[in-house]
Amino acid sequence: MKIENIKPADIEKRSFEIISETLGDKKLDPRYELIIKRCIHTSADFEYADSMYFSDGVADRIKEAIRNGATIVTDTRMAQSGINKKRIEANGGEVLCFIGDEDVAAEAKSRGLTRSYVSMEKAAHLGKPVIFAIGNAPTALLSICSLVAEGKLDPVAVVGVPVGFVNVVESKEQLIDSGIPAIVARGRKGGSNIAAAIINAIQYQL
Amino acid sequence: MKIENIKPADIEKRSFEIISETLGDKKLDPRYELIIKRCIHTSADFEYADSMYFSDGVADRIKEAIRNGATIVTDTRMAQSGINKKRIEANGGEVLCFIGDEDVAAEAKSRGLTRSYVSMEKAAHLGKPVIFAIGNAPTALLSICSLVAEGKLDPVAVVGVPVGFVNVVESKEQLIDSGIPAIVARGRKGGSNIAAAIINAIQYQL
Repeated sequence: MKIENIKPADIEKRSFEIISETLGDKKLDPRYELIIKRCIHTSADFEYADSMYFSDGVADRIKEAIRNGATIVTDTRMAQSGINKKRIEANGGEVLCFIGDEDVAAEAKSRGLTRSYVSMEKAAHLGKPVIFAIGNAPTALLSICSLVAEGKLDPVAVVGVPVGFVNVVESKEQLIDSGIPAIVARGRKGGSNIAAAIINAIQYQL
Repeated sequence: MKIENIKPADIEKRSFEIISETLGDKKLDPRYELIIKRCIHTSADFEYADSMYFSDGVADRIKEAIRNGATIVTDTRMAQSGINKKRIEANGGEVLCFIGDEDVAAEAKSRGLTRSYVSMEKAAHLGKPVIFAIGNAPTALLSICSLVAEGKLDPVAVVGVPVGFVNVVESKEQLIDSGIPAIVARGRKGGSNIAAAIINAIQYQL
């Protein structure tokens, strides 16, 4: 097979052209088109053209929060690594992940919960506007929903795209039903790469 | 929908059971079954049951190298983050990624190449056994193939699972044709998460 000789800067542009060509006549909501296409770009999986849920106005809400220096909290180091930090930090924000913290591990063990669950409780104590980017743990979504229901957390929005087979679909539907501003990839698919892609797609529009 | 009350430690076990049930009568090569299932686990995408290529003996080769302290080099920080480091470091190895290095950025710019391409050249100067885990950049695979052809690199093996639309399929086929010991997800799909999952699946068998 022939390798196309394409300049580094043009590879992403050409990729998005191929995605648009492949989508053909399929209509995407123009408010979310760049987010959906970046999910496809990062996974080569066109199912994201059909599986994504956006609560009303959520993309503008996240954009505005990033502009005002909101903190982004992820459930995995992978999602944290995948989020482009330059623009977020330039606006006064930061990208945090508490999953590896010793206090989180100790508390999770003593209470018989996942570290993901407890790491969201830790985020609730930050005392500043938080956007959650959850690509792995359904228990992180359940933790966020409980904290909001108890009045202990009021997130800017939740990117809820865990991947997997146990409680994943259910946790995403619970997030949607909660009324928390959210972007969700319905079904089993998602991942830390998808969580990061969604945050990046939004901040690249700033 | 009901949330199942499953203990943290049992979530992965139950996930693999669901994967096995869903695969049904489909036969996977027993030498690679755990690797393929972990790719499905990390993506919820059953296409990996059909798309994966393994050169003869490659999994044992990687296992042996990790046991002997081989270095793992990734093309992205996400793949680096996703690889479980405890066991690798306990065996004397480490997980490196040069993509963000200033010297790599400067050289890539001056030569009109991707940083991924140049970061593989940097890895070729390590002077020790290297396993590559490439989940993003087709140019990283092309760089590795060139270095091997020029006698400048002799990797333990290459996990070649970039994702995307430009040169991705071609770069993977070139890797397979090169005869370098390799694990490849054929087609457009793959990713940093898949690269990390493959390395983890192998080291968990140690």
